[in-house]
Amino acid sequence: MKKRLRDLGEHGWIARMLGALPAGRHTIVGPGDDAAALRIPRGRLLVTTDTLVEGAHFRLGWEPPAALGRRALRVNLSDVAAMGGSPLAAVVALEAPPTLPAPALFGLMRGLAADARRHGVDVVGGNLAAAPRLAITVTLLGEPGRRLATRADARPGDDVWVTGTLGGDGYAVRALLGGRRVPRPAVPVRVAAGRLLAPLARAMIDVSDGLVQDLGHVCCASGVAAEIDATSIPVAASCRRALGRGATAFAATAGEDYELCLTASVRRRVRLVRLAPRLGCRLTRIGRIVPGRPAVRLLGAHGQPLALRREGFDHFR
Amino acid sequence: MKKRLRDLGEHGWIARMLGALPAGRHTIVGPGDDAAALRIPRGRLLVTTDTLVEGAHFRLGWEPPAALGRRALRVNLSDVAAMGGSPLAAVVALEAPPTLPAPALFGLMRGLAADARRHGVDVVGGNLAAAPRLAITVTLLGEPGRRLATRADARPGDDVWVTGTLGGDGYAVRALLGGRRVPRPAVPVRVAAGRLLAPLARAMIDVSDGLVQDLGHVCCASGVAAEIDATSIPVAASCRRALGRGATAFAATAGEDYELCLTASVRRRVRLVRLAPRLGCRLTRIGRIVPGRPAVRLLGAHGQPLALRREGFDHFR
Repeated sequence: MKKRLRDLGEHGWIARMLGALPAGRHTIVGPGDDAAALRIPRGRLLVTTDTLVEGAHFRLGWEPPAALGRRALRVNLSDVAAMGGSPLAAVVALEAPPTLPAPALFGLMRGLAADARRHGVDVVGGNLAAAPRLAITVTLLGEPGRRLATRADARPGDDVWVTGTLGGDGYAVRALLGGRRVPRPAVPVRVAAGRLLAPLARAMIDVSDGLVQDLGHVCCASGVAAEIDATSIPVAASCRRALGRGATAFAATAGEDYELCLTASVRRRVRLVRLAPRLGCRLTRIGRIVPGRPAVRLLGAHGQPLALRREGFDHFR
Repeated sequence: MKKRLRDLGEHGWIARMLGALPAGRHTIVGPGDDAAALRIPRGRLLVTTDTLVEGAHFRLGWEPPAALGRRALRVNLSDVAAMGGSPLAAVVALEAPPTLPAPALFGLMRGLAADARRHGVDVVGGNLAAAPRLAITVTLLGEPGRRLATRADARPGDDVWVTGTLGGDGYAVRALLGGRRVPRPAVPVRVAAGRLLAPLARAMIDVSDGLVQDLGHVCCASGVAAEIDATSIPVAASCRRALGRGATAFAATAGEDYELCLTASVRRRVRLVRLAPRLGCRLTRIGRIVPGRPAVRLLGAHGQPLALRREGFDHFR
C-alpha cells in the first residue's frame, strides 16, 4: 500500500527529504535547523516569493509531481530573471492534505531539488503544514546584476521587446480544463537571458498574468502608455494552430508565459538584435512606449485599436 | 457592504496594501516589483519560513486579524532567535478565499507590518493567491550573530535551560477548541534573549511542537539523550490553574510556546543566572544532557520516569 503523509507524519517526511537536499556552495547551515545560514556575495540580495495552489494554478494529474516541483521553482526563477539577477538559494513551504500519497510529495520535492541544482540554487530549508489542498510556496533569493531592471524606468520612445513565444501554456491550460489530454509546457528559464538583457533594458518584467496586464504594470510604475503591434506578437505554434485568427488576442492576455518583456531605448535596437542569438530564445520587438495615461493598446495591421475581452489573469475574479 | 477580495481583485488589493509597507533601512527595491532588492550586512544571512493554515494553526474569530498577522511574523522571529540572529526582512505569501472580507486581510497585513517595524524587519514583498482557506507563509531573513546556535552541538553533561513559561498557548487552544472564549496569548518575541544566549549556549532550538519533541530534535542532531526534571518546568499560570496535577505533562508536550530551549556547559551556569535579568523573560534550568541513544526522559520529583501520552504536536497525525 502506498504510504500517505499521515502515516509518515511531518517529521518523518522531513527526515526522509533532507537526504535529497545536499548543501550547496552558498550554504553554511542547510535544511533541518531552525533557520538556514547563507553566504551572500557582495552583500546585496534579491528576494521573491510565489505560490502555486492546487485548483487555482494546477491540478494533480495534469503533469507528473516532479514537473510540478520544477514549475513551483521556475515561476520564482522568472522573477529573479526579470530583475536581471542570478538565483542563489530557495526555501520551500509546502501545504498538503494528510491523505496525499507520500511519493507524490517526494516526487515534487525531488523534481524541484534537481531543477534547483541545475540552475545553481541551494534549497536550504522549508516547512510542511497540513491543509485541505496542495500548495507550494517557494521563496527565492538571488544575486542582483550590476543593473536592477525594475518596472519603473520605461520612457516614451522606448521599444517594447519580448522573449520566446506567448500563449503556449495558456492554450494548454484551456485544453486541459476542457478535458483534453495535452502536455503542459514547462516554464521557460530566462535567467541567462535576463542577465544579458538587463544592462540594455530600461524597464523589465516577467509575463505571468498576460502580456497586456504585465506591460500595464510597467506603464503604471513608469507613468507611460504602450502600443503593441498585434501582428508582431510571437504566438506559440500550438496556440496559433488551434485558435487561428483569435490566437493573437488570446496569447496577449492568457498568462503563465514566464517570458521577459522589456523596454529599451531605440538606440539599443542594433545591440539587442545582435544579442538575440546568445539568449537561448527568440527576442521580438513588438511595440513602443508613448506618453500618456498608463494603458496598453493593442493595434491591428493598419494601426487600428483592437478590443480585448479581458486584460489578463486575476485568480480572484 | 463590506468589500470582499473578489470585488477588489488581486492587483487592486496589492496596490492598496503597498502604501502600508514603507521601505526600510535594508531595502533597495521594496514591494511591488518582480523581486525586492536588499542590502545584507556582512554578506551572511539566515533564512527561515513557516506557514499558518486556517483550521490547522488558527481559526478566524479566535483573535483579531491584526493579532493573527503578528502571530505569522513571530513564529518566524522565533526561528531566527533560536539561531542567535537578528531579523532583517520578510516576504509574505498569502492564500485567501475570494469571499474573504477585504478588511480582514488588510487588518492581518497591517498587524504584521506594524509588528515587523517594531522588531526592525522590512516587509519587502509578497504574493496573494486564491485558495479554499486562509494561509499565511512568512519567509524571514536575518543577520546571524557571531555564533550560530544550531541543534547539533549539545554534549553530555550540558545543562538544559528554557526561557519564559510553557503550556499557555496550548491550554488556550484546547479551551478555544472546546468552545470556551479565552484570549489566545501573543507569541513571545525572544530575539534579544536569543542574541544574548547564543554565545553561552551549545545547542539551541525554539519550542514550537512541544518541549519534549523539540528537545528530541536537539538530541537526534547531537547524538545525545536528555533528562528533564518535570518539577522544574516553568508552567504558565493559566495552564497550572486549569489543569492542576496534569499541567506539567501537558506543558511539556503542548507546543506553540515559541520559547527558547538551550543546552550549555555546566561552567556557564553562573553567567547564565547573571544574564537572566537582561533577557526580558524567565530563564529556568530544567535538566541535563546525558550520553545514550537520542531520547528525552521526563523525571518526577524522586527521579522516577514519567510516562507521556504523546511527545508533541504533529499536524499530520
